Amino acid sequence: MIVAMQNQATDEQIQSVIERMVELGFNVHRTTGETQTILAGVGTPEHFEVTEFQVLPGVHQAYRISSPYKLAGRGFRPEGTRVTFPNGLVVGGDEVVIMAGPCSVESSDQIHLSAKQVAASGGQFLRGGAYKPRSSPYSFQGMGVEGLKLMREAADENGLLVITEVMEISQIEAMLPYIDCFQVGARNMQNFNLLRELGHVRKPVLMKRGISATIEEVLLSAEYILSGGNYDLMLCERGIRTFETATRNTMDISAIPVLKKLTHLPVLGDPSHGVGKRDLVPAMALASVAAGADGLLMEMHPNPDKAMSDGAQSLFPDQLTKLVEKLRLLAPVVDRSIASAVAKVHA
Amino acid sequence: MIVAMQNQATDEQIQSVIERMVELGFNVHRTTGETQTILAGVGTPEHFEVTEFQVLPGVHQAYRISSPYKLAGRGFRPEGTRVTFPNGLVVGGDEVVIMAGPCSVESSDQIHLSAKQVAASGGQFLRGGAYKPRSSPYSFQGMGVEGLKLMREAADENGLLVITEVMEISQIEAMLPYIDCFQVGARNMQNFNLLRELGHVRKPVLMKRGISATIEEVLLSAEYILSGGNYDLMLCERGIRTFETATRNTMDISAIPVLKKLTHLPVLGDPSHGVGKRDLVPAMALASVAAGADGLLMEMHPNPDKAMSDGAQSLFPDQLTKLVEKLRLLAPVVDRSIASAVAKVHA
Amino acid sequence: MIVAMQNQATDEQIQSVIERMVELGFNVHRTTGETQTILAGVGTPEHFEVTEFQVLPGVHQAYRISSPYKLAGRGFRPEGTRVTFPNGLVVGGDEVVIMAGPCSVESSDQIHLSAKQVAASGGQFLRGGAYKPRSSPYSFQGMGVEGLKLMREAADENGLLVITEVMEISQIEAMLPYIDCFQVGARNMQNFNLLRELGHVRKPVLMKRGISATIEEVLLSAEYILSGGNYDLMLCERGIRTFETATRNTMDISAIPVLKKLTHLPVLGDPSHGVGKRDLVPAMALASVAAGADGLLMEMHPNPDKAMSDGAQSLFPDQLTKLVEKLRLLAPVVDRSIASAVAKVHA
Amino acid sequence: MIVAMQNQATDEQIQSVIERMVELGFNVHRTTGETQTILAGVGTPEHFEVTEFQVLPGVHQAYRISSPYKLAGRGFRPEGTRVTFPNGLVVGGDEVVIMAGPCSVESSDQIHLSAKQVAASGGQFLRGGAYKPRSSPYSFQGMGVEGLKLMREAADENGLLVITEVMEISQIEAMLPYIDCFQVGARNMQNFNLLRELGHVRKPVLMKRGISATIEEVLLSAEYILSGGNYDLMLCERGIRTFETATRNTMDISAIPVLKKLTHLPVLGDPSHGVGKRDLVPAMALASVAAGADGLLMEMHPNPDKAMSDGAQSLFPDQLTKLVEKLRLLAPVVDRSIASAVAKVHA
Repeated sequence: MIVAMQNQATDEQIQSVIERMVELGFNVHRTTGETQTILAGVGTPEHFEVTEFQVLPGVHQAYRISSPYKLAGRGFRPEGTRVTFPNGLVVGGDEVVIMAGPCSVESSDQIHLSAKQVAASGGQFLRGGAYKPRSSPYSFQGMGVEGLKLMREAADENGLLVITEVMEISQIEAMLPYIDCFQVGARNMQNFNLLRELGHVRKPVLMKRGISATIEEVLLSAEYILSGGNYDLMLCERGIRTFETATRNTMDISAIPVLKKLTHLPVLGDPSHGVGKRDLVPAMALASVAAGADGLLMEMHPNPDKAMSDGAQSLFPDQLTKLVEKLRLLAPVVDRSIASAVAKVHA
Repeated sequence: MIVAMQNQATDEQIQSVIERMVELGFNVHRTTGETQTILAGVGTPEHFEVTEFQVLPGVHQAYRISSPYKLAGRGFRPEGTRVTFPNGLVVGGDEVVIMAGPCSVESSDQIHLSAKQVAASGGQFLRGGAYKPRSSPYSFQGMGVEGLKLMREAADENGLLVITEVMEISQIEAMLPYIDCFQVGARNMQNFNLLRELGHVRKPVLMKRGISATIEEVLLSAEYILSGGNYDLMLCERGIRTFETATRNTMDISAIPVLKKLTHLPVLGDPSHGVGKRDLVPAMALASVAAGADGLLMEMHPNPDKAMSDGAQSLFPDQLTKLVEKLRLLAPVVDRSIASAVAKVHA
Repeated sequence: MIVAMQNQATDEQIQSVIERMVELGFNVHRTTGETQTILAGVGTPEHFEVTEFQVLPGVHQAYRISSPYKLAGRGFRPEGTRVTFPNGLVVGGDEVVIMAGPCSVESSDQIHLSAKQVAASGGQFLRGGAYKPRSSPYSFQGMGVEGLKLMREAADENGLLVITEVMEISQIEAMLPYIDCFQVGARNMQNFNLLRELGHVRKPVLMKRGISATIEEVLLSAEYILSGGNYDLMLCERGIRTFETATRNTMDISAIPVLKKLTHLPVLGDPSHGVGKRDLVPAMALASVAAGADGLLMEMHPNPDKAMSDGAQSLFPDQLTKLVEKLRLLAPVVDRSIASAVAKVHA
Repeated sequence: MIVAMQNQATDEQIQSVIERMVELGFNVHRTTGETQTILAGVGTPEHFEVTEFQVLPGVHQAYRISSPYKLAGRGFRPEGTRVTFPNGLVVGGDEVVIMAGPCSVESSDQIHLSAKQVAASGGQFLRGGAYKPRSSPYSFQGMGVEGLKLMREAADENGLLVITEVMEISQIEAMLPYIDCFQVGARNMQNFNLLRELGHVRKPVLMKRGISATIEEVLLSAEYILSGGNYDLMLCERGIRTFETATRNTMDISAIPVLKKLTHLPVLGDPSHGVGKRDLVPAMALASVAAGADGLLMEMHPNPDKAMSDGAQSLFPDQLTKLVEKLRLLAPVVDRSIASAVAKVHA
C-alpha cells in the first residue's frame, strides 16, 4: 500500500498513519519530498482496507498496490488453465468452443430438437435453464429437475455436453448427476455462499460477469471458487449495464483481452445477453472470437418467436449454422480453430 | 402493450403481429395512420415479453404499458404501508427512524458499546452484520450466530430493535430468535430464491436497492416478497454504481421521492454506503430526510479507525449524536419528526 | 507520481522507468521490498501523463499523487470564494441564492410574467435561454439577442439579476451588455476554447457539470477559466447520466459536499435538469440545500404545459413560491439563510 | 406519439390530453379498454416534447413513435452512403479503410516519420491533432496551423489523405487548404453551432460518438450536419464512459452493427480511445472489423514512450504493420477487404 500525505500534513498525522500501517503488518518506507511525504507499505497483510487510510487525517490518497486476488492472477499459472471435460474436450486451449441452446428447457420436444440443431450446427455444449432467475415473480420459473433430466437425455443423444445455471446451494446436489458444467449467472456473481460451495464441487464452473461488476470484482469472485479447490473455472463476459438503451446491455468486448491478460482462466463471450437482439448476435460473436474469446455461449431456439423466455435474443437454428461457418473462417486469423463437434465426443 | 409498426410494414407483417398478440391474450385495437400502423393490445396476459415483439419483422417499437408489478404499486395501498415493530415503533408513518451501528459485530465489548452509543444518540435500531458478504474471500466474514446473540443482548439492554443482514436461505431459521428485521443486501436484491423465502417469514424485511438495479427492478424484487404474503417490507436507497469514483457509489437521492410516488412501501436512505466516506455522511443523511426518507440506516463504530470492515464510512459516535440533533431540526420542515428513542420502547 | 513495479520486474525495467521519471523532472526515491519495488517521484513536472507509465514494461500500476488542478483547489483559497454581483448580492457566503425562470425566452409577455413571478417568490436571478443547445436541429433554437434584451428589461423591472447560457465564443461580446452572469451548459463543460475565453471576461460565470464529467474533470475545466484570470466562478451539479431511466438524469447530490471540500468555489444545484420532472424538483431542491448548496438554479414557467422547451421539468409559479417558503425554514438547519429578494437590490 | 392513460384517469384528464395533442397537430385515435385508455397520435408535428405529456395529470406513460431524425435514418438512403475522397478512395463501400498516426503533431520529423510508417503499414489516412482539446489547461495544446502544414506535407509525400480534429468554428477556414477530412471529437459531438457550420462545408466529416452519447443522440447530431447539406459524413465509435476502470473507456462494439442498421452513414471504430492501452488495441481493432466497421482510426507514434499526448494508447509502428496484416486476413470473413494503400492514390 502507498499513502500519499497532504502537503500540509503534520508530523503527528504522518506518525499516526505510520503506526497504523505497522500495526497491520506493513514495513513502512518514508519518502519526504519538498512539499509532500509518501509512505510505502511493503508486505501483504491479509486484512486491511485501503479506504480506511483514505479518510485518516492528513492523508491525500491511499493506493493498494498488491493485487487483492492471488489464485486467479495470471502469475499463478502463466501457461493458462485448460478445463477438460469427460469427453476429452478442452476449453482454454487452441480450440474455441460453442455452447448453444434455448434460454429455458420448455418441453421434451423443444430440448431434443434444440440439441439436434446445436449438434448439427457444430456446437459442443447444450445450454438451457432448468432453474430460471426472473426479475418478475410472475414470469416462467423453469422446469426444475425434470428439465435437467430432459437436457441430459437430449445432450447424450447428440453427443453434447450439458451446461446449466445453478441459483441456489440446495440445487447443487440435485444437479450433479445430470450436468457437465455449472453456470453461475450474472445475478449470482457475488452470491459468495454459492461460490464457496462451488469451490468444493468436482465439476467445472462457468461464472458470468455481473451486470455491474468490475474486472477486479470478477477476479475476486473467481478467487472464492478457486480458493475452495475447484480450478476448473471459466469466466464469461455477457454485457454490463450502461446508459445506452439501444441494446439490452453493453457487451464489453475489451473485457476479453483484459481478462486474458490478468488471469489464467479461460474467457468466453455471451453475445445473446450482451446485446439482447438476435440480429446483432452474429456480429458480436465474431467480434468476441476476434478479440480472443475461448468460446461462445449463445441462445438458440427451434422457434424463437414462441420461446417462453428470451425469445428476442435467441438465434434461429439456421442463423447459428451460418454463424459457426463464419467462425470457422475467422478463428485461424487469430491462431485458433473452432472445436470439432461430434467427432470429438467419440474420441 | 402497444406495437408501433414500421412505415413500410406489410399487411402480412401487421397481421402476423396481431395474431401473436391475440394468442397471448390481448384484445387488439388497430389504428391505421397515413404512414404508420399502431396496434394497441388491451388486457393483461401474465406471461409475455415485450422484447419478443421488438424483433418481429415490420415492428418499429413495442411498449409494455401495464406495470409489471402489482402488489408493490402505490395504487394497491394508496394510504401507504406502516410497518409496526414489537415495541410499537412504526416505520412509514410521521416519524423518521434511525438505524445505526457497526458494519460488523466484532466482539461483545464492541457491540455493547455501539448499542449504548446508538441509544444515547437517539437511534431506535441497532444494525450490525453477523454474516458478511465480502468481495474478497480473504476478508473478515463475520461472527455468525454468536454475533446475533451479542447483538440481541446489546440491543435489549439499550431498548433498541435489531436489524441485520441475511445472505442465505439456510440462515433464516437461525436468525429468527435474535432479530427484529431482516436486511437484504444490495448484492442479494435479485437473489430471487431468498426473496421468495422471506415472503413466507413473519418478520419485517428491509430490502436494499442493488448497486445497478433500476427502480422498476427494485419494485419487481419487492413483488417477490409481497407475493409470498409478507407485507412488512421497507426499501432502502444505498447508492448506485456510476462512472464517478470520488465517492464509493453515487447515492441516488431522487430514488427516494420517485419510490414514494410509485409504491406504498416505506423508503429509507443509507448514506454510509451511498458515499463511503464518513465526512460526507451527515450531508447525505440530511439530504435523504429533506427528500422524504422514512428513515436512515447508518454505520457508526465506537472506534472507526480500528473497524474490521467499512471503517472509512462509519461515523464517530459524537458525529451521530450531532447529526441526529440536526435531523430533529430538519424533519419538521418536511412535516415529519425524528422518532423518539427509549421512551417509545417502554410504551 | 508513484510507480509500483511488478513482482517479476527486471532491474533493467526498473532502471528504464527511473530514467524516464528523471527525464520528466522527477526526483526518484526507490523502495525495494522483498517482492516489489516502488518508485516515488517527487516534484511536479507540468507535462506528464500517468497513463504513459502504466504501459511501460514491468510496471504494475502508476498513480498521479499531485492534484492536476491548482487554482481550483480548496487550498488556494481556504476561506472560500464569494462572488459579488453589481447589486451587492453575494454567492458563496451565508446566504443561499435562488435563480429561476423559463428554459427559453419565448416572448416579451412570457419573460416579463416569469420575472414578476420569480421576484414574487423570492428569487434573486432570472434565468432563461436566448441561445439554446438542442439535441435535434428541428427543435426551437432560441430568440438570440432579442431574447437577451427582453430578459434584461424584465429583470430590471423586478429587481433581478440575469443569468443565461453562452454556447459560442462569438456570442460573448453580444451578451455582455445584457447579462450579469454567463452560464456554461453541461454540453460545453469541455469546450475548452469557450472556457479559455470566459477566463478573460470580467463577468461571473456559472459552469455546469457535464453529463458524464467526473468531479476531477469539473475542476480541471474550472481551471481553464481561473487560469485566464476570472475568479468569479460558480459550479453547478445538474445530474449525471447513469443506467436509471426513471429520471432524466441522476442528480448526484453528493457532488455538492464533495466539491465544497475540494474547491473554494461556490456550488449550486439544478434540480430541474437533475430529475427532469417537476413533481420531483421540490424534494431535490430541499436535498441540495440540506447537503450544502450555495444556491439553486431552477426552471419555472408561467404556463409549463405550453412551454416551448423543458415544460415537463418547469415548476408552476405557485410551486416555486411554496418551495422557497420551505427553503427558508430549512436553511437555518444547516446554518444558512435564503437570500432576501428585492430588498437587497436597493441596498 | 402514444399516450397510455392511468387506470384511474378521469374523462376530463383524457379530454385535456387529447386537446393538447390536437393543438400540436396530431390526429388522435382513442382506444378505450376495460381498465385503461390509450391515445394514438398520428402525424408528425415538428415541435413537440414527449416529456411534456409524461407529466400531464392522468398520464401513465407517453412514447414518441416517430424517429426524431430523418436524413440520418437508414430509410433515407437504403443503399448506404459512400464518401469519396479526391484520390478516389471510398469509405462505406466494400473496402475497410485505415486511418492512423500520432495523437498530436509534435514536430516535422515526428509527423514525416509517422506518415512514412502509416503508408508502409498499409494505411490510407494520416491522422494527427493540430488543435488539441485537453482536460487540463496545463497540458500541451497543439501546434495549430503550423501542425496542419506539416501534416499536409508529410501526407502528400506518402500518398496519404489527412484527417484532423476541428474544435472551433473559427478554425474551419484555416484548416480547409490542408486537410481532406474534418474530425469532430467526442467532446464536441453536441457542439451544435460547430456541427451546423460543418453542414455548410464541402469536405467530408468524421464525427465521433460522445463519451456518454446514446445512439439516438449520435444520429441527432449527424442530422445537424446532414441538414446543412453536407452528406459526406462518417460516424465513429470510440468508447463510452462506464463504471469500469480497467480500460480508459468501454468500447461499445455493438454500436457498430446497431448504427449500420439504423443509418446509411459509414461507421468506423477507434480502438485507441476505446481502450486506452496499446496492448489491447489490436484485439479491439480486429473485433471492430469483425463486427462490421467500415474503417479504423488508430493512434500510432514513431516513439510512443516519448509522445506528448496519448502515448499509452499509441501503437508502435511494427504493431500497426502486424495488425494490418491480420486485418487483411480477417476482412474477407465478413465479405470485405482492406483498402489498398498507395496504389489507390495513383489511380
